[in-house]
Amino acid sequence: MPSRIETKIRQSFASQSLMETLRASLVRIEEGQTEIQAPILPGSRQQHGFAHAGLTFAIGDSAAGYAALTTMPDDHEVLTAEMKINLLAPGRGDLLVARGKVIKTGRRLVIVQSDIYACEDGHETHVALMTGTMVPVART
Amino acid sequence: MPSRIETKIRQSFASQSLMETLRASLVRIEEGQTEIQAPILPGSRQQHGFAHAGLTFAIGDSAAGYAALTTMPDDHEVLTAEMKINLLAPGRGDLLVARGKVIKTGRRLVIVQSDIYACEDGHETHVALMTGTMVPVART
Amino acid sequence: MPSRIETKIRQSFASQSLMETLRASLVRIEEGQTEIQAPILPGSRQQHGFAHAGLTFAIGDSAAGYAALTTMPDDHEVLTAEMKINLLAPGRGDLLVARGKVIKTGRRLVIVQSDIYACEDGHETHVALMTGTMVPVART
Amino acid sequence: MPSRIETKIRQSFASQSLMETLRASLVRIEEGQTEIQAPILPGSRQQHGFAHAGLTFAIGDSAAGYAALTTMPDDHEVLTAEMKINLLAPGRGDLLVARGKVIKTGRRLVIVQSDIYACEDGHETHVALMTGTMVPVART
Repeated sequence: MPSRIETKIRQSFASQSLMETLRASLVRIEEGQTEIQAPILPGSRQQHGFAHAGLTFAIGDSAAGYAALTTMPDDHEVLTAEMKINLLAPGRGDLLVARGKVIKTGRRLVIVQSDIYACEDGHETHVALMTGTMVPVART
Repeated sequence: MPSRIETKIRQSFASQSLMETLRASLVRIEEGQTEIQAPILPGSRQQHGFAHAGLTFAIGDSAAGYAALTTMPDDHEVLTAEMKINLLAPGRGDLLVARGKVIKTGRRLVIVQSDIYACEDGHETHVALMTGTMVPVART
Repeated sequence: MPSRIETKIRQSFASQSLMETLRASLVRIEEGQTEIQAPILPGSRQQHGFAHAGLTFAIGDSAAGYAALTTMPDDHEVLTAEMKINLLAPGRGDLLVARGKVIKTGRRLVIVQSDIYACEDGHETHVALMTGTMVPVART
Repeated sequence: MPSRIETKIRQSFASQSLMETLRASLVRIEEGQTEIQAPILPGSRQQHGFAHAGLTFAIGDSAAGYAALTTMPDDHEVLTAEMKINLLAPGRGDLLVARGKVIKTGRRLVIVQSDIYACEDGHETHVALMTGTMVPVART
């Protein structure tokens, strides 16, 4: 993967202010896959003190979108068309890790998947499975 | 709808710290439907300055969940099992409004829908459609 | 809606051999919405004798696709990119009716919904809610 | 996996009349996974002569459901609560193969996935990805 793609992705991620609000980090970018981590902050929780599904979704969606972007030409971006999340377990612990990957890339659509894990005491629990569709658009 | 159900829902909402981080408000609770609003804060955006899909999802999921909760016995809560979001338009403007409603309630599952609108200069644009499944659980 | 669009849709429906196998009929075509009916044949059932979800999906998907097609230029077709079905109740009775409609049409994507009902003794029960994404493609 | 579970699954499959109509076969049952095949019959097609998404969905849903059933007690069945299908490529060829697996099993819900492949001249193409939720119910 050319380093200018990585640069484009890092710039895009840095300009997503919600990622900053949630203290999320883009920790890995490879051809067809990325990883985003976010701490389960005191301000990112649901009513039982676990990670809010909004946090899980936000980093899972971004991880999948940037995975799609690694397969696109330089002058393209991607937009999320749809995304389904199945929640598997409570997001218990200190940190969520979202691993996004491309299932099938194409000119019109990119099908993506994200798996999100909660980390507690060094142990990972699979907390969500997401599948979705990204739409490539030429940057204007 | 008994007022104790409304009280239970308002307490639950108040204890979701992500809703406070996003400055979301629960502005309406009726039998089978609720409305949650959130400003599109400087810190809630994606790379083009529009509402992040994570914000859209977070309030849409909560609106749907609390709509489900209005149909449950007092000692029950609901958990999101799955939720799909279709994004229809960019979340442009000052405010997002999520209207959640129950499609079908039941003892094992509650099927829900949320429609999310962006408000700009007093005009509403439909930005997302969500459908999902909530699971009732007895509070312990 | 121009009658040539209706003709195009009727020809397309007639060439879907699975619709013939399932004895489905396209009973209504209007701008942005269509209705498809199918009997719950002895050969279209699941293990309890109710309509198989494959039947429900097949007619719901087609109804949604043709609803999308009513909003397209003459030389375009649509393909299903994704579709989620939430099953609400068993498909009990003699007949399924799928009503498809367009939520939002566009050049790149069309967001659609189908509601499927089972008819028994003249009474309709809402058995499934489907939401999906259709992709317009120019006919070659 | 006890052989009585396999027997229960084979009996259930045999009583799904749509599977017979579509000439589908349950070709593999293992703990947490199953495989169903169906020929792309002249009567199972969409308007371009490829496998109809209704066929793809029907065998993908059944494969996922029976995968879930391998993880259940003897006296339980499963019902599909929801299922999303992402279509990746046209179902071109002679045969569809659906491989269902369990992502997470539980007392209230089982999260499942199916991958469906089209076989043409001995080559498999990944044509659909499905994820869904099954609900265990005690047989009455």
